Amino acid sequence: MSALSDAERVAWLRLARTENVGPVTFEQLVGRYGSAAKALAALPELSRRGGRISPLSTPSEVDALRELEMGARLGARLIASCEPEFPARLAAVDPPPPLIWVRGHVSLLHKPCVGIVGARIASAGGQRFARGLAGQLGAAGQVVVSGMARGIDSAAHEGSLPTGTVAVLGGGVNDIYPPENAGLYDRLIAEGCIVSESPPGKKAQARDFPRRNRIISGLSLAIVVVEAELKSGSLITARLAAEQGREVFAVPGSPLDPRARGTNDLLRQGAALCESAEDVLRVLQQQRSIRERERPTYGAPASQAALDAAVEALRGEVEALLSPTPVSRDELVRATGAPAPAVFAALVELSLAGKAELLPGGMVTSA
Amino acid sequence: MSALSDAERVAWLRLARTENVGPVTFEQLVGRYGSAAKALAALPELSRRGGRISPLSTPSEVDALRELEMGARLGARLIASCEPEFPARLAAVDPPPPLIWVRGHVSLLHKPCVGIVGARIASAGGQRFARGLAGQLGAAGQVVVSGMARGIDSAAHEGSLPTGTVAVLGGGVNDIYPPENAGLYDRLIAEGCIVSESPPGKKAQARDFPRRNRIISGLSLAIVVVEAELKSGSLITARLAAEQGREVFAVPGSPLDPRARGTNDLLRQGAALCESAEDVLRVLQQQRSIRERERPTYGAPASQAALDAAVEALRGEVEALLSPTPVSRDELVRATGAPAPAVFAALVELSLAGKAELLPGGMVTSA
Repeated sequence: MSALSDAERVAWLRLARTENVGPVTFEQLVGRYGSAAKALAALPELSRRGGRISPLSTPSEVDALRELEMGARLGARLIASCEPEFPARLAAVDPPPPLIWVRGHVSLLHKPCVGIVGARIASAGGQRFARGLAGQLGAAGQVVVSGMARGIDSAAHEGSLPTGTVAVLGGGVNDIYPPENAGLYDRLIAEGCIVSESPPGKKAQARDFPRRNRIISGLSLAIVVVEAELKSGSLITARLAAEQGREVFAVPGSPLDPRARGTNDLLRQGAALCESAEDVLRVLQQQRSIRERERPTYGAPASQAALDAAVEALRGEVEALLSPTPVSRDELVRATGAPAPAVFAALVELSLAGKAELLPGGMVTSA
Repeated sequence: MSALSDAERVAWLRLARTENVGPVTFEQLVGRYGSAAKALAALPELSRRGGRISPLSTPSEVDALRELEMGARLGARLIASCEPEFPARLAAVDPPPPLIWVRGHVSLLHKPCVGIVGARIASAGGQRFARGLAGQLGAAGQVVVSGMARGIDSAAHEGSLPTGTVAVLGGGVNDIYPPENAGLYDRLIAEGCIVSESPPGKKAQARDFPRRNRIISGLSLAIVVVEAELKSGSLITARLAAEQGREVFAVPGSPLDPRARGTNDLLRQGAALCESAEDVLRVLQQQRSIRERERPTYGAPASQAALDAAVEALRGEVEALLSPTPVSRDELVRATGAPAPAVFAALVELSLAGKAELLPGGMVTSA
């Protein structure tokens, strides 16, 4: 695990920003070819083999250098998942985001973190509770992670600015939204930390938020949901946190308050109950440290010729097994009876061709 | 299992109202001697053997007849735990109250019942919720049981008067408390049912409420706690219900509301979450029927001479094993290595002498 060279950093950025390359495909490709540069070189052939006719859209070196330069002008840093400065808990997520942009106090990401998320249209009481909880968790040495949205998120950041707070944005690290949070954003830069998987300058779009939420939970040992209606984004963050093996807490509320529906439902499904920071700290103290997933080694390329032959024989069979219902990669390995590396390589080619979608957690659907 | 004769009913009443005779001792004595009349005859000798010098205070036949007459004047009925009309779920409690007074529609006690209890000083929202929950449970065929106290209890009765409601009182069946519930009491007599373990005419005292709460949970398949502060009586009812194997539900509330402390704490301890009648009905449908405890047979007296000899040899050893920390009767059987009937008989003698306290659930302390 060491810092990337400048050239490999550019290659990582180009590969990560390539059409049809999500974090799963990224990890598979760099694992298979030993470097992002070699994976980039193999891309046209792989996507063609997967069945794609037009070439994949990949940013040029100039595009990548422009993104690096824009980040540098903001004082932001690009950290790759293989680098020592990448937060260990986020690296343990399967798969981690290949690259994150970070602005402010990067060291906060290496401290124990708790996520606090919740309704944008929150009650005054809910915001007061979130602010107080964040302050108490901060006083106990926890960094508070949230999404800088209106309502609960903003209150959580405000309560933990003096002790340490991290905002994960859906847009770029300079995407200040909502506008009334401009003052909060300035304080987050000065005293806290901003994290984003998007390029600097990018405005957040709806599809960016699931990735944002995965980073909030991925950075955190535990997530606390304060006020959430049914089917809200906070419940998605809670689900992602549970999938990542993180502790999920929910703050109870009256059945007469619709903003408690989501949190009460989490409790019914087995989330831990949070009435105060005590509830969270007690569990964290007991929690056995999250077993860190082995970081990918990136550097032991498989025997190309043998793998290519195996994939060639397998690709059609794997494609036929896919449907809109997610299946696990392991199920595909069992169903084909083929070696796992060949199945994974076939899936990467199909995903590059837009015929398969590789989801976090090892699941696959037809695209 | 059949109705008692008039003479045996008087004997049951006298034995149940005898000093130092709680429900555990009552059950042991009637089981050992085969009838309450024979147990009454044996009492002076048993208490003397246990080490008591002055005779136990037992009501006279005239006292018992007076209680029966007073109940009859109120239109109330006295039902013994061995009689067919005694509610089966309450008979399954270990041990059941030997006798209950019932006023109003006794048939309600034989329908499926859910208890709703909670804070006396309840919020308007909490009372509204309790009223609505009681109405929904009633519409689904559940009889609602509560304690006719101010606040949540009263709201639960009001919501279920049209469909069936049972009030369990700490005082006698004619003890109207609080006074503002006089109107509710009249409607309970006309449309619902009143149950009490106390003699008619008795005013409730603080020590009557744990017995009252045991009957509320004992009659019910499930208990719902709506608003409760920490260390409140409703939490005692919840604990009794759990000990009796009944389902415990708690209504969540905001951490900012002190009246939600007790219910949130129940949730933290594993109570099921109740936001609506649906939550309760879903669990009741799944619930395997509570395994009914074998009703005591009352009629096969043990060989007196042999038992007396065994107890004589054992009493001192059993007394020495007791302390203010509760132990189970089974532990005492193991510790002495003596036959269980002899140990139980020794405990009854010690309890009559005021040297042991026999608690529900088979536990014993020094008195």
